Amino acid sequence: MWIVKIGGGDGINAEGIIRDLAGRKEPLILLHGANAARDRLASALGIEKETVTSVSGYSSVFSDERVIDLQMMAYAGLRNKRIVETAQRHGLNAVGLSGLDGRAVQGKRNAGIRVREGGKTLMRRDLSGKPQSVNEGLLRLLLDQGYTPVLCVPIADENGFAINSENDDILTVLAAAFRPERIFQFIEAPGFLEDKNNPASLVPVIAKAELAVREAQVEGRMKRKMLALRNLFDAGTAFVHIADGRAENPVSDALEGKGTLIR
Amino acid sequence: MWIVKIGGGDGINAEGIIRDLAGRKEPLILLHGANAARDRLASALGIEKETVTSVSGYSSVFSDERVIDLQMMAYAGLRNKRIVETAQRHGLNAVGLSGLDGRAVQGKRNAGIRVREGGKTLMRRDLSGKPQSVNEGLLRLLLDQGYTPVLCVPIADENGFAINSENDDILTVLAAAFRPERIFQFIEAPGFLEDKNNPASLVPVIAKAELAVREAQVEGRMKRKMLALRNLFDAGTAFVHIADGRAENPVSDALEGKGTLIR
Repeated sequence: MWIVKIGGGDGINAEGIIRDLAGRKEPLILLHGANAARDRLASALGIEKETVTSVSGYSSVFSDERVIDLQMMAYAGLRNKRIVETAQRHGLNAVGLSGLDGRAVQGKRNAGIRVREGGKTLMRRDLSGKPQSVNEGLLRLLLDQGYTPVLCVPIADENGFAINSENDDILTVLAAAFRPERIFQFIEAPGFLEDKNNPASLVPVIAKAELAVREAQVEGRMKRKMLALRNLFDAGTAFVHIADGRAENPVSDALEGKGTLIR
Repeated sequence: MWIVKIGGGDGINAEGIIRDLAGRKEPLILLHGANAARDRLASALGIEKETVTSVSGYSSVFSDERVIDLQMMAYAGLRNKRIVETAQRHGLNAVGLSGLDGRAVQGKRNAGIRVREGGKTLMRRDLSGKPQSVNEGLLRLLLDQGYTPVLCVPIADENGFAINSENDDILTVLAAAFRPERIFQFIEAPGFLEDKNNPASLVPVIAKAELAVREAQVEGRMKRKMLALRNLFDAGTAFVHIADGRAENPVSDALEGKGTLIR
């Protein structure tokens, strides 16, 4: 089976990806973002991101109830249902699920961030956390009957509350449970780039052993990306394609060797 | 099993309904509205309803792509996932589904409305239709595993496109498939009122044979309501409770005889 992560940018050709998947009869789980739709909605509603900086100097977005509302509207609402609709139109029997639904993705809420406010140090706890497990029973029940689960945030915390989470972490937990033969990550770039501002710096193939080496050489977001990729192989995946989601036939292109293949 | 329709008004105590249902271990399907959330979102986004009047003088809301977007955000997104979250917090293993998901509710798109525009008569076809069937296999699969399906619009048309539909019609199709022992309709009123502006005009009991008589005596929305209720009994339901969704324990109240019992 395959797991397909569809980026949340406006440039992503979700219909092309789905059309290209629909004919292949491969059991699938889709996982999608919706950052462009979320940002547009936040801006139309006048909701601004609140960023907090911890005493240790680490900045992050503070996920309050409004952030979760936005996520429900943009991810679980608009984008999830438009993807499900597109899939249905192309004969893929999709069922959209947020992580809350049947606790499809269950996480652990973050303990909180130590911040300085008004001369005092205090803990602020937001609605975010790390996925710990997926409801394999529910997802296999659907897969066995020919349905294609289409997953997105929010996920459920230990007590059933909605929390925000990173799609890369959800992908890791999904891969550990399902050990897919292939994982596709469709992004708004030609593939994995050495220099993200230079499309010519595309790396066509990365050996999985190289991921740890690269992880040690880089910092920040790229370091986390390398770790996330390494986790997928630890979970038993054979091939990860990082490929251009803007193409006309993104899946065919990736299978034909365009983009980056990690093996 | 029971089918529970939860109104979409702000006054509805959805948490109370869910808490009151969670302890009862009765297999359930929930169906909900979200008109208050939808109207608020439409107003914040500056999206106005377009009403069209047919050449025969019948007025209706024209459901275009923006109406469907709003429905996905407010119904399938915000309200569906908040209800699922509330259910999960109270130990009810809810799975939220729009009619699109696995074609849970499949309909037939309306042919169009004949209108006069600029001196010409033309057909305008919107994204609305009537539900024809539910995906009984998918819903039973979930029910048999202890999940509670939580349904809402949009539904799928013959070709998998998202269309708007009336919840009363979805309820009729659901009832025909599942023949629930009881149906609850939680609304923002004490029950069925002879005069909708007078709470003292509550009708505590209606015999099902009386529905056809009432239907013949009234007009407009109330006539359609009577027909919708009659359809539920034709489908095999034994009891329909029309009850106050604003109460602290709406389900207990209804079972104790508050509101309107139709039998």
